[in-house]
Amino acid sequence: MSKFLTGIKSTGRPHIGNVIGVIYPTIFLTKNEIFKNKFILIANLHAITNFKYIKKNKKNAYNILAVCLACGIDYKKFIFYRQSDLPEVTELLWFFSIIFPYNRLKLVHSFKENVRKKNLINTGILTYPILMAADILISKAELVLVGKDQLQHLEIARKIAKKINNIKQIFTLPKAIGIEQLIPGTDGTKMSKTKKNIIDLFASKKEIKKQIMKINTQNKFSNNKKDLLKDNLYQIYIILAGKKNKEKITKKFQMGYQHAKEELYRFIITKFQSERILYKYYIKRKNKLETIFKQGAKKMKKIVNYTIYEVRKAFELIN
Amino acid sequence: MSKFLTGIKSTGRPHIGNVIGVIYPTIFLTKNEIFKNKFILIANLHAITNFKYIKKNKKNAYNILAVCLACGIDYKKFIFYRQSDLPEVTELLWFFSIIFPYNRLKLVHSFKENVRKKNLINTGILTYPILMAADILISKAELVLVGKDQLQHLEIARKIAKKINNIKQIFTLPKAIGIEQLIPGTDGTKMSKTKKNIIDLFASKKEIKKQIMKINTQNKFSNNKKDLLKDNLYQIYIILAGKKNKEKITKKFQMGYQHAKEELYRFIITKFQSERILYKYYIKRKNKLETIFKQGAKKMKKIVNYTIYEVRKAFELIN
Repeated sequence: MSKFLTGIKSTGRPHIGNVIGVIYPTIFLTKNEIFKNKFILIANLHAITNFKYIKKNKKNAYNILAVCLACGIDYKKFIFYRQSDLPEVTELLWFFSIIFPYNRLKLVHSFKENVRKKNLINTGILTYPILMAADILISKAELVLVGKDQLQHLEIARKIAKKINNIKQIFTLPKAIGIEQLIPGTDGTKMSKTKKNIIDLFASKKEIKKQIMKINTQNKFSNNKKDLLKDNLYQIYIILAGKKNKEKITKKFQMGYQHAKEELYRFIITKFQSERILYKYYIKRKNKLETIFKQGAKKMKKIVNYTIYEVRKAFELIN
Repeated sequence: MSKFLTGIKSTGRPHIGNVIGVIYPTIFLTKNEIFKNKFILIANLHAITNFKYIKKNKKNAYNILAVCLACGIDYKKFIFYRQSDLPEVTELLWFFSIIFPYNRLKLVHSFKENVRKKNLINTGILTYPILMAADILISKAELVLVGKDQLQHLEIARKIAKKINNIKQIFTLPKAIGIEQLIPGTDGTKMSKTKKNIIDLFASKKEIKKQIMKINTQNKFSNNKKDLLKDNLYQIYIILAGKKNKEKITKKFQMGYQHAKEELYRFIITKFQSERILYKYYIKRKNKLETIFKQGAKKMKKIVNYTIYEVRKAFELIN
């Protein structure tokens, strides 16, 4: 019986990339009954390392939960919790900081990426992977669903676990389970809110249509199979509709990109009809969402309290 | 009505430098009744940034408390608490990390000092001043007794307070009250356990004698007043016995350094007789010491819970 964990940073309403890449794999990977606990963490402390996400932090956490429920994750079988409701992770952040060399943090891809983009890096951006290690290790999750760009963070969590285990055997070494399936953004690069290249399943129909119409295609239309395979619009369509429908999709491209885009729009609206209805239902019920988070935090407290007790003991702070 | 705070890092039993530099000024500075609260923090989370202090961490905290009580600090008028009993400071550490640029941390004297000495710097050494800012700000202490080498850390705490206040007015700006009086170590440099140049008032008489006999003096004996003023032994003696006894002390030097050292030894044993007895009394009563810490933590919780509530609200994590 294992423990499963995945985390979603609360930086806005999950887009189609999050749904396909994290939410569906979460449902798929945890279908069998090997899991004793299934945790879904809303990383709202990580989110605010970028100041612009302070403003709608609370709303964004509700949005993620509502989308997860709408997509079929059962809150009775999963534990949903907000990072900020479990400040014990920040205590681990300190203990882990003591044993992790700061120079190594500067080599982390996500940090280097931030250095490339910005001038002023806050300390939280540097210590980000240590907080993530605390998130992963505090519940002793064995199997963690992470994105490809977070594999390095998982490796840091494993290193920290090993170092603590050298003082006292406390942690299980977490492993990556599957890797987030990627869907390209409307501009062909990785889908991301900051790049404004997303398709937002839960926006208005008008907005979704606008996002789909924005999808980059090849300059010159060709429905030659080889050319289609390189096409961004075609790739998005195939990922959403499934490879088994390749022939059908290819036919839709015979009448040009415009037609294919309209078909994709209709396909999305039909496919996600019930999810869109359910999302609207849940997002209106903030009290219900808050209750789910509160119950999740309560369950987590019991699990993490023992971990914290063990770590304090390892550092000889208590008897 | 103000709040007073001082902190002592739990890296061993306080030596004569700590008693003269921190414990006595604490008593002296808080004698008048302007203080609503007087906090004494045992910084045991800071202590373990140096791994060698993990081993006796708990014992060291008891040692500090026993020495404070023996030297006349009244636990009914002060709140003694261990940093590890107030993990809320680590939550502030995260919030403060988000708003403090990491590059500035690299410019801190204590960090640069560590870089000079060691090859491998852990992340806790880098973020040390942010945790200290959390310690100072969490209780909204206005007047803080710090060592000269910690003035820069206090400045960082003020900067962080200002930045948070720009989001929401939460913190009072802490000020330094007095500066730790320094007493040179037996080798003439700053007294410090790591340099093994301390005089330990609470050691055995034999040990104290050994430490005093080790005090560096000028190569050539001279009881010329000008030469004496430059002498390390003479300086230590004057600081302990007071300037008003200058004449008497100068006379003790007429028979040479050896004689002056023996006189200093007798002076210390007599002057600190009751403190030495009281220390032995308290250090045997671990349950009593533990109760003082537990009561302190309980009182602190009430104070810091509101600060944490305000900060979470400022970062829009709660309603």
